[in-house]
Amino acid sequence: MPPQYTIGLDYGTNSVRALIVGTRDGEEVASADWSYKHGSDGIILSRDPLLARQHPADYLMGAQASIRAALRQAAKSVRGFKPDQVIGIGVDATGSTPLPVDEHGQALALSRRFAKNPAAMAWLWKDHTSVAESAEITALARRIRPQYLAKCGGTYSSEWFFSKILHCLRAAPEVFEAADSWVELSDFIPAELTGTQARDKFSANICAAGHKAMYNSSWGGYPDREFLAQLSPKMGALRDRLCVKARDAGTAAGKLTAPWAKRAGLREGIPVAIGGLDAHMGAIGAGIAPGALVKIIGTSTCDVAVWPLKQKLADVPGLCGIVGGSVLPDCYGLEAGQSAVGDIFNWFVNCIQPGGERGTHAALTEAAGKLRAGESGLLALDWNNGNRTVLVDQKLTGVLLGQTLYTTPAEIYRALIEATAFGALTIINRFEEYGVRISQVVNCGGIAEKNPLVMQIYADVTGRPMKISRSGQTCALGAAIAAAVVSGGHEDFASAIDAMTGLKPRVYKPNAAAHTVYRDLFALYSMLHDAFGKARWQGSLYTVMKQLIDLRNRVRA
Amino acid sequence: MPPQYTIGLDYGTNSVRALIVGTRDGEEVASADWSYKHGSDGIILSRDPLLARQHPADYLMGAQASIRAALRQAAKSVRGFKPDQVIGIGVDATGSTPLPVDEHGQALALSRRFAKNPAAMAWLWKDHTSVAESAEITALARRIRPQYLAKCGGTYSSEWFFSKILHCLRAAPEVFEAADSWVELSDFIPAELTGTQARDKFSANICAAGHKAMYNSSWGGYPDREFLAQLSPKMGALRDRLCVKARDAGTAAGKLTAPWAKRAGLREGIPVAIGGLDAHMGAIGAGIAPGALVKIIGTSTCDVAVWPLKQKLADVPGLCGIVGGSVLPDCYGLEAGQSAVGDIFNWFVNCIQPGGERGTHAALTEAAGKLRAGESGLLALDWNNGNRTVLVDQKLTGVLLGQTLYTTPAEIYRALIEATAFGALTIINRFEEYGVRISQVVNCGGIAEKNPLVMQIYADVTGRPMKISRSGQTCALGAAIAAAVVSGGHEDFASAIDAMTGLKPRVYKPNAAAHTVYRDLFALYSMLHDAFGKARWQGSLYTVMKQLIDLRNRVRA
Repeated sequence: MPPQYTIGLDYGTNSVRALIVGTRDGEEVASADWSYKHGSDGIILSRDPLLARQHPADYLMGAQASIRAALRQAAKSVRGFKPDQVIGIGVDATGSTPLPVDEHGQALALSRRFAKNPAAMAWLWKDHTSVAESAEITALARRIRPQYLAKCGGTYSSEWFFSKILHCLRAAPEVFEAADSWVELSDFIPAELTGTQARDKFSANICAAGHKAMYNSSWGGYPDREFLAQLSPKMGALRDRLCVKARDAGTAAGKLTAPWAKRAGLREGIPVAIGGLDAHMGAIGAGIAPGALVKIIGTSTCDVAVWPLKQKLADVPGLCGIVGGSVLPDCYGLEAGQSAVGDIFNWFVNCIQPGGERGTHAALTEAAGKLRAGESGLLALDWNNGNRTVLVDQKLTGVLLGQTLYTTPAEIYRALIEATAFGALTIINRFEEYGVRISQVVNCGGIAEKNPLVMQIYADVTGRPMKISRSGQTCALGAAIAAAVVSGGHEDFASAIDAMTGLKPRVYKPNAAAHTVYRDLFALYSMLHDAFGKARWQGSLYTVMKQLIDLRNRVRA
Repeated sequence: MPPQYTIGLDYGTNSVRALIVGTRDGEEVASADWSYKHGSDGIILSRDPLLARQHPADYLMGAQASIRAALRQAAKSVRGFKPDQVIGIGVDATGSTPLPVDEHGQALALSRRFAKNPAAMAWLWKDHTSVAESAEITALARRIRPQYLAKCGGTYSSEWFFSKILHCLRAAPEVFEAADSWVELSDFIPAELTGTQARDKFSANICAAGHKAMYNSSWGGYPDREFLAQLSPKMGALRDRLCVKARDAGTAAGKLTAPWAKRAGLREGIPVAIGGLDAHMGAIGAGIAPGALVKIIGTSTCDVAVWPLKQKLADVPGLCGIVGGSVLPDCYGLEAGQSAVGDIFNWFVNCIQPGGERGTHAALTEAAGKLRAGESGLLALDWNNGNRTVLVDQKLTGVLLGQTLYTTPAEIYRALIEATAFGALTIINRFEEYGVRISQVVNCGGIAEKNPLVMQIYADVTGRPMKISRSGQTCALGAAIAAAVVSGGHEDFASAIDAMTGLKPRVYKPNAAAHTVYRDLFALYSMLHDAFGKARWQGSLYTVMKQLIDLRNRVRA
């Protein structure tokens, strides 16, 4: 039998990528990127710095262009490759990125009337125009539906589905009125490809619905009509026009239509999987399984774990979300994250610009790598962008402690890396305190692949080996794996993941001596973490500086 | 009557300066610096980074050379100037800078046997070889003579008299054995100039003895024999060979000898005042009086106040020293200080080197000057070199809190300036809490003269006008004032100070709006100060970051 392939379509912030993957062994035979054409780097901006929109025309054009380019590349790189060997498509996207649609499921912005109205376009995940609405939703839920917040970290974000829709109702009522419903980008694409845009055929993915729109089967799906009606009667009415039942990535949204088969150059009728959020598909592409924590490390991190649906699971407080079926169909998906990791290192290098020529990431990494754990006497909190897990508090800021008159930029750089490692350990500990055992950590993303010092410090701080995902395109690969499952290329996710994902040979093993020092430092980090981060903390910090000095002297001696 | 002049001889860390001052109005008619010739920049170093010695030959050669050069300069700048118009000499010096002397009061290092032995030279104030001995002395005093520590800030320093002598006994016993006694540099020079080196004629100054050698008339002068003998029987025996009674700067050590008159080119027999420590003489040169706080601001600060002997004075806890007669004969001298001020700004500019070309002191000062109080959301603790007042704790370190992903070097620079201002306010508050009212603040030193932003922030933080001493050489001027008093040029210090010191015209007045913001910030600074600095503090820091963010948003709005 000739090899079979699936395509993962990965909608990022500035471009869409099509990745063609062999279902047998996960070989990535071709990949093509297509940059969105509207706005600045694909993002439509305005005078309001909080606004970030995208034009849905880019999404459709991007699907066609990236798939065609990837197919051309595969034809070159694989002898005898034929597009007919592609047996399915999977989709992942940023989110929450909702867009208003008409009664046929067509994006409003694709109509002449709304083509240039930003409110009618897709509201990109990082659009923060609905800060006030998110606070309003959080307050209402805290009062009458606290269970909604328990599954999404205690605060409903301005980046999320209902905040954005409510803001549209207030700020651009003509768009709200014209919209029949709202859909996530990760659902819009599968519906377009399969002709299932109409409400009676449309499917929402449980991943975005659960993590961003308070969807949970235990309370009947989306927030109830009464709740939404208290925000506005029109929001209550919208409830009836949302998709009734969200589904997981183990099922197909439908089959590729003839027009789309022609546009993309693929075989008509191949299944398109239910979509998912990029980080969750990324966890699949990195080989997620119960017991594994997948860390996607970039400017911030997304930390994903899964837990069998059939086993008991507590509400782990401080996580961003706990949603059944959001990653693997038979598991809860648990999402945590750090608000800034690479962004903190970038801040130090680009905003502070320390040490002239010796202030590049490469030079600081090299110099920091020559230091030993505890040697600088420094301790930092990784909160320059607030704390997403476990404190879930945007009103937190960075701390650097332990400076002398001799503290160097490399020492600070290392302290910042260590702070993010302590933040990572705090997340792991939270999982385990609530019974979600973490037996391996798999890292992916640019920093994991490119900065061995960061990975070694993570290993030394956590006392756990740090593994690196083999694929550099875990999100697209995850989508391709979903495609392999729904198209019958694999029986289920477990076998697909087993066959199609892997690790890089290099594993970062913890150094016992460094880990001993970091245990002491982590205790001090935790003390500061609680002192500044927990409302009920009461205590003394008198020993913190003295212990850091003693530790420094011990390490230097 | 022709104008009269006095000379202030100021022994600094790297050089000695002679300043010729008119007694009528304090005009500084001539000044000459002479750099010490031995060692590196006048300091003899070794492989041990804690060691810092000076050769006494430099002190004597420097007196001659600097006075002669100043006289030559005065002859050029003052029509008809004659050396005979110089009616007295005053001396100030770094300290504690003790040196071993033989039974004639001659410095051991001036003998052939010890000429090259660093232990026989002067132990410069910043020699820290006696860390262990200072801890031993502190522990002993805490156990059996707690009153000794109450007058010197609770800890006996490795920079001080008995620590250094005890270390010499242990590390270089041949020097200790050869020494008849030990004298402070600020006493060695007046004794040399007046031929009063022999023990029966020798005078110690109360300033160095009281602040650095636990001398206090209430317990009979230096620490008692029994106390010193517990450190070592030989230290106990040394007690009998120390000067019996220390005197204040209002009396003369003696009269200039014929040989020294010839060497210096001055009239034989003019009085030489009892010496003093540089900062205390600097307070005189800046116009000290009850109610005034003199801040000498450089790499660190020395803060000096005085309080009438005849009025009741509590033991103000956390001061470096409280000594009757140490500044003015009829007052207690109260010494406080900040372990690092300019050194913190220098650390940021020279060690961190932020922002490339925009990272000079001048550029950062300019950019920081454009920011408003509270606008950065940052808060720092000024403890990069520990805290001298009021916590008296070397095992404290710096803190920077409130960083976001957008924090700039100028914001940090301003936060560091503000931190030192909060430290300054903490000292003022401590004085006033114990009844020492501060009705005016007079600043001197390089930073006070050269950085208007620092002075404005100090005014805004403290809510008090910041005045600047007219003289740029307050230490030498203070010594010249003491000379004017002992030579009869003025009746007493009050009239001499009134006539010979003054302020610069520019006074930095507090801005009311900024002061309001700084009151809030100081409350947060004090919270961090106590949380990390006080053993008994118990509390919560949860609101600190949130209040900083709220303040930032309010100021920016």
